[in-house]
Amino acid sequence: MSYQAPVQDMQFVLDELVGMAEISQLPGYEEATPDLLQAVLEEAARLAAEVLAPLNRVGDQQGAKLENAEVKTAEGFAQAYQQLVEGGWTSLAASPEYGGQGLPEVLALAVQEMWHSANMGFALCPMLTQGAIEALSSHATAELKEAYLAKLISGEWTGTMNLTEPQAGSDLALLRAKAEPQGDHYLIKGQKIFITWGEHDCAENIIHLVLARLPDAPEGVKGISLFAVPKYLVNADGSLGQRNDLQATALEHKLGIHGSPTCVMSFGDQAGAVGYLIGQPHQGLVCMFTMMNHARLSVGLQGVAIGERAYQQAVAYARERVQGVPVGQRERGAILAHPDVQRMLLSMRVINEAGRALAYQCAAAMDRAHKGDESQRSFWQARAALLTPIVKGWCTELAQEVTSLGVQVHGGMGYIEETGAAQHYRDARILAIYEGTNGIQALDMIGRKTLFDKGQAVSQWLDEVADVVRQLSEVPALQLLAERLQTAEQQGRQSLAWVLEQGSDQQAMAAVAYPYMMQLSTLAGGWQMGLAALKAWPKREQGSFYQAKLVSSQFYMEQVLPRAQAYAQTVAAGGLALAGFAADWY
Amino acid sequence: MSYQAPVQDMQFVLDELVGMAEISQLPGYEEATPDLLQAVLEEAARLAAEVLAPLNRVGDQQGAKLENAEVKTAEGFAQAYQQLVEGGWTSLAASPEYGGQGLPEVLALAVQEMWHSANMGFALCPMLTQGAIEALSSHATAELKEAYLAKLISGEWTGTMNLTEPQAGSDLALLRAKAEPQGDHYLIKGQKIFITWGEHDCAENIIHLVLARLPDAPEGVKGISLFAVPKYLVNADGSLGQRNDLQATALEHKLGIHGSPTCVMSFGDQAGAVGYLIGQPHQGLVCMFTMMNHARLSVGLQGVAIGERAYQQAVAYARERVQGVPVGQRERGAILAHPDVQRMLLSMRVINEAGRALAYQCAAAMDRAHKGDESQRSFWQARAALLTPIVKGWCTELAQEVTSLGVQVHGGMGYIEETGAAQHYRDARILAIYEGTNGIQALDMIGRKTLFDKGQAVSQWLDEVADVVRQLSEVPALQLLAERLQTAEQQGRQSLAWVLEQGSDQQAMAAVAYPYMMQLSTLAGGWQMGLAALKAWPKREQGSFYQAKLVSSQFYMEQVLPRAQAYAQTVAAGGLALAGFAADWY
Repeated sequence: MSYQAPVQDMQFVLDELVGMAEISQLPGYEEATPDLLQAVLEEAARLAAEVLAPLNRVGDQQGAKLENAEVKTAEGFAQAYQQLVEGGWTSLAASPEYGGQGLPEVLALAVQEMWHSANMGFALCPMLTQGAIEALSSHATAELKEAYLAKLISGEWTGTMNLTEPQAGSDLALLRAKAEPQGDHYLIKGQKIFITWGEHDCAENIIHLVLARLPDAPEGVKGISLFAVPKYLVNADGSLGQRNDLQATALEHKLGIHGSPTCVMSFGDQAGAVGYLIGQPHQGLVCMFTMMNHARLSVGLQGVAIGERAYQQAVAYARERVQGVPVGQRERGAILAHPDVQRMLLSMRVINEAGRALAYQCAAAMDRAHKGDESQRSFWQARAALLTPIVKGWCTELAQEVTSLGVQVHGGMGYIEETGAAQHYRDARILAIYEGTNGIQALDMIGRKTLFDKGQAVSQWLDEVADVVRQLSEVPALQLLAERLQTAEQQGRQSLAWVLEQGSDQQAMAAVAYPYMMQLSTLAGGWQMGLAALKAWPKREQGSFYQAKLVSSQFYMEQVLPRAQAYAQTVAAGGLALAGFAADWY
Repeated sequence: MSYQAPVQDMQFVLDELVGMAEISQLPGYEEATPDLLQAVLEEAARLAAEVLAPLNRVGDQQGAKLENAEVKTAEGFAQAYQQLVEGGWTSLAASPEYGGQGLPEVLALAVQEMWHSANMGFALCPMLTQGAIEALSSHATAELKEAYLAKLISGEWTGTMNLTEPQAGSDLALLRAKAEPQGDHYLIKGQKIFITWGEHDCAENIIHLVLARLPDAPEGVKGISLFAVPKYLVNADGSLGQRNDLQATALEHKLGIHGSPTCVMSFGDQAGAVGYLIGQPHQGLVCMFTMMNHARLSVGLQGVAIGERAYQQAVAYARERVQGVPVGQRERGAILAHPDVQRMLLSMRVINEAGRALAYQCAAAMDRAHKGDESQRSFWQARAALLTPIVKGWCTELAQEVTSLGVQVHGGMGYIEETGAAQHYRDARILAIYEGTNGIQALDMIGRKTLFDKGQAVSQWLDEVADVVRQLSEVPALQLLAERLQTAEQQGRQSLAWVLEQGSDQQAMAAVAYPYMMQLSTLAGGWQMGLAALKAWPKREQGSFYQAKLVSSQFYMEQVLPRAQAYAQTVAAGGLALAGFAADWY
């Protein structure tokens, strides 16, 4: 159950697909030289393998414990977190103004993939902190930034997102938590649920970002404001002051990610928790979305990461488990030699590869949007926005499949908890749900990312896919890949046209949103795998990595890409069947 | 988390799709009148709802406990089992010669679906006993039958299947358990793992069916014999004698089905466990397959059953959970009104409906093969044999999807164990693994069920699908269904032709076995949903059930059937990519 970061594939994606050389030319990223990149990846891989991965099962078994409103995380977690902090790993992409290292997002993302593969329950802690850093950086007053940012970036403190209440999940308009103004601050009261790492023993303070309503707030989502609510108040000199009026009152019993304490948080049981407004009153949702977009990318990345972990474990088992005489052989052999086991492993592998490429492309688009040429920024902004629901929605849907295949490769042993394959399967299941369910991602994809700009971003992207098709078709050996990708690309255009044409029919849009997202995402995976084949082809004599990549690409086009066609048919069928099924027939 | 058996859909499948009227005309089945059928289903539904379903979560939470080689099952299980026995529920389809009720298999199957929906961990106990009954009925001596059958059929005793050993899972040739002849019996020694209900406190005796090798046995699967090894020896007068030399030495910690004790069994730690040969020496595998075929159907049925349970729970939640303003409405509403939630629920529903129809068709084919006209028996035998890997392979693969959708409908609550949706997801995961992994099912489908008879059974079945297409095309309102089904049927023929053509290429066959099985199975679901539409159409004015069935059928054709096309492309691509990926590249 060990984990070795796939550094070679990460570097391939960064160098060949994402264009790291170009990104490191962007102003501010000059330090991201190839040497630095390699050193960072290798050092992170070591920490992931030696420190975090061995704690993955410990976290699953021990979970976190709540006693007297204090949460004790699993054995070794606090020490591991200290190593993360001491190594400067929490500050890679953060602003140098507050002690960050100012490296490209896409590099930080590659490193985060390793944390999530090694120990997803653990890695949620820095992931949530990252979100808090972004919201504060973009929207907080200079004073608040001064007070919190450096400590969050260094990792000495951690951050949380407090959105959900029992009656307000996807529908944040229903939230009831209150914020009463009092001098320079507010008193927060309310209960929040599903708060990841809401309380723990790994850092000395926690900055909770809390959505609540001001007394004069309009109803609905236009009346929500965002507050920073520290566990311990911070004195003027930066030292920790008194305990704030907030506490974890329960931990959830979850299907997976047991290592991550999922808290019920109670704010203001006494006088009210002291909180500070972030951004403008009633603009909380806008501020929250700042962090949510990146968080969605991170969750999609978790899908890739856990798929990679499941893949490595399945391959290790398939190499050692002897069962049956493989086709064409005379002796019993490891099950890795059975074609159906190969099919499962290769399916896992190519889905991970495609997902990794898409996630890194999304982060690179963010880098280009932030640091690139002014005239190109809105293009890259739109690209990142388009890729976000694809990465979140598709990579997490497929993480279910990949981790399930991981169980299946183990046969009966996969069903036994001690084997560890089942943990990945359980852990992965949350990914399709949190940070906006995949149903929400699909609505985002068809609404804000397609109809809102009349299909412009999708269309520009399809042109790029077509360009990959053209380049593939110029290499005789890659003809078949070109043909398959072209078919899927044209079906993508048909679905886009259908959606634009029917766009005013909200019922139909909501009905086809999911298959539409899945169709374009499957195609997007093909786009990156096609690009990978193009880059690998000239280097095919330079090592088995490139030969393997060519076969991966072929396998993707034959075994995964055809699903896009099935989704296309579902999109074209529209939402009539759904609309025709009366509510009381269910 | 209650469960109400879908009696109306069961009766529809039995009456309209399977042709129960015809089956009850078969010699020996005359008592299976419509009145009896309805009474049995309704009474079983009551027991499932009131007794078994409430224990489902209890079993999950408490599991089973092993102390001093004795297994204590969860609270209430032993009493519930007694109710099953007292109600005569274990003997429905068993031979009247030994106290059974001699009712059709397909009726017993419908009842078993209810047990599995209500409490899968519990229902495994009678399911395994059923297998033991079949093996003994078909292969044991008159003396053994006399000694064991009546007690197993009445349910006073239970049965197990002891195949797996640590080194011998799918590859039974590797098994090492030994049987030394001693007078009229044998002394069995060896360790078996993954023994479902291998030890428990619900019945007074357990008859273990154990695969072991005789001293002169040839190597491999041709040297395996089957033995009946009772927990307590049985005296000549039928009373229980001394404890046999066998015991449960450990219980597995599993991902799901916690209510079912999965035992490590040790035979012959002292002198050897007394066992009796079933069938001929070295013919154990043949005997085991007698029970395995039915067991595979039962496991496929479990997939349908747990999907039904997950569906009911998801619908209940979707009706009560208020979140968001549904498209086209002004007020917040239950999430059931959101098209994407409807999509998930309807996907679950139609997959369950199609699976139920296929499972019942398979059991009905067995009934016709056993009791039908002599000249037709081999046809029905082949049909049952063809449907077995479809039901086992496809219904259990899709049970993963259906139970996963069940979690998804619940949003964040789905990930919390107390909600119960996650239990179905965990429980379902074993189904794709046990009784022959789905990879094994796929090899069975393409090998014994396709190549072995040169595609005859598949081809005959495709003709029936074509006939459904023809009938659909004669109803103007069902045109679109006819067209979609026809496309899939023709693609099915293409894949069959490809398989027959390439059949000698074992590597290619093994590589495409899974997509081939999934393609034909998806088509088989369409065949039954098309048939259902044909039967529902003339009755559409007779109630919403028939209207709902028509929409279900349409939805299946639009959202599930298109996958067959994707699988067809994968089949047609062959196994070249797999074969081209070197073992050390993984």
